Amino acid sequence: MSYNSSVVVLQRHIDSPKNPHLKALLRLRERRVREREGRFLVEGAREVGRALSASPRILEALLCPERFTPEAKKIAAAVTAANCRVLYWVSKEAFDRLSLRQRPDGIAVVLPTWAWSRKLGNLETRDDTLLLILHGLEKPGNIGALLRTADAVGASAVVLTGGGTDLFNPNVVRASTGSLFTTKTLHATPDEARAYVERTGLGLIAATPEGPMSHWDADYGGPTAIVLGSEDEGLDSQWLDAAPIRVHIPMLGTADSLNVATAGAVLLYEAIRQRTKIARHAFHPR
Amino acid sequence: MSYNSSVVVLQRHIDSPKNPHLKALLRLRERRVREREGRFLVEGAREVGRALSASPRILEALLCPERFTPEAKKIAAAVTAANCRVLYWVSKEAFDRLSLRQRPDGIAVVLPTWAWSRKLGNLETRDDTLLLILHGLEKPGNIGALLRTADAVGASAVVLTGGGTDLFNPNVVRASTGSLFTTKTLHATPDEARAYVERTGLGLIAATPEGPMSHWDADYGGPTAIVLGSEDEGLDSQWLDAAPIRVHIPMLGTADSLNVATAGAVLLYEAIRQRTKIARHAFHPR
Repeated sequence: MSYNSSVVVLQRHIDSPKNPHLKALLRLRERRVREREGRFLVEGAREVGRALSASPRILEALLCPERFTPEAKKIAAAVTAANCRVLYWVSKEAFDRLSLRQRPDGIAVVLPTWAWSRKLGNLETRDDTLLLILHGLEKPGNIGALLRTADAVGASAVVLTGGGTDLFNPNVVRASTGSLFTTKTLHATPDEARAYVERTGLGLIAATPEGPMSHWDADYGGPTAIVLGSEDEGLDSQWLDAAPIRVHIPMLGTADSLNVATAGAVLLYEAIRQRTKIARHAFHPR
Repeated sequence: MSYNSSVVVLQRHIDSPKNPHLKALLRLRERRVREREGRFLVEGAREVGRALSASPRILEALLCPERFTPEAKKIAAAVTAANCRVLYWVSKEAFDRLSLRQRPDGIAVVLPTWAWSRKLGNLETRDDTLLLILHGLEKPGNIGALLRTADAVGASAVVLTGGGTDLFNPNVVRASTGSLFTTKTLHATPDEARAYVERTGLGLIAATPEGPMSHWDADYGGPTAIVLGSEDEGLDSQWLDAAPIRVHIPMLGTADSLNVATAGAVLLYEAIRQRTKIARHAFHPR
């Protein structure tokens, strides 16, 4: 592995798990610190690789060659070659302290968080827009899983409204396997999100156990926004009133609800099933 | 709350987090101990409630009134009235030691594990059988989420083959929200599961990224078994060779795979979408 010294301007070492810079990075596990400092930590070769492919600005990289997997070694070379001007060489002990994984792979980067609602205003609407709005979700694993599915179906964007968990939570990053870098993901207030949906004329489909029609009977053919609430709270009346179409997912067993990440996947795949069917008919008329 | 003393024959107290009986229960977190002792621990009002509704034999109950939520209080009364002959009153400190939750609700029971492959032989096949086979899955959260979805679609049974995680893992119980008591769930070896599928003539559909058709193009109308492998390993050649139909789930973004619990939900809901559509046509011919 070679490091291009014309790009990397600062190289430092972190040997002790008690290193003050390391401690500052550990504080990024807290949302208020991430928000105050406007930066967050991304760990793992797959996640850092996806961050790189989206070319965000990397504020600093933390590398522990003793922990490198072959993939991490490759990504580390790309990090140092491409975007990174501050590089920390981290001891095994210090990296293990930083890592939230059972098997750390020796690579992490610090990235700037991105803007909230201003970005939503800039989001273009097209005929095939498929927006996923997540209201009040708390569990980072669920948010991350939904980002991953949103990427898989080629959703236009994911908007988080309300809730105590942000996009930049380490467990969101992890469960998304880095999909928050490959799918547009942003925060907005519920009012901003509703105003955007109204202004752009997106068909808003709300998932709720009380929905009068099944999710199979809704039409996802036009520009669409799907909104999901948390498992405990569901969607409030403001969201339900704003949605002309409210759907339930049929429950045929004894369970009375699905995990929210499961519900989102079922809805998103139904939306693209309908669109794929329409496209097939359009291209292969019988 | 009243306790029917004619049913509960033994009442004991656990005050200290170092109580030897409590320590024995903590060892049930390990699979080999669960297998050796043939019992496992189920925590939480929702999960215990579902266990009760399936009427398994309860070996003992552990109750901590100081931690009771209103729902837990109700379920505790049902536990003591119905099935339980050994009751431990547990102090807050001791219950918190036992609990794996952030907010323990003061109720847990010990249940016998159930038989493995012998049960599979007894599983009837019907025209509408929808079996989910999970091969080599390791993450208890994924297994539990799949049990919950299997219940939601009214699947006939879930069979776990291979893998280092068993049905009775506390995190499986939790992520399933108790669905392992409401949907038939069992273990079998891969050979036993394949022999069962062959003997009963189930249509075996394997999910694999290399599948030649999309999951939308497969036919789930007849008696069907869907088999999924782990995210890392996928399905081995023995499973792929056994499956006449191999499907991929279309990936329209940059992600190259779905979370396995997501993939399973997408497949199961496509299966019941097709069946619901068929049933509608059958009952409401136009």
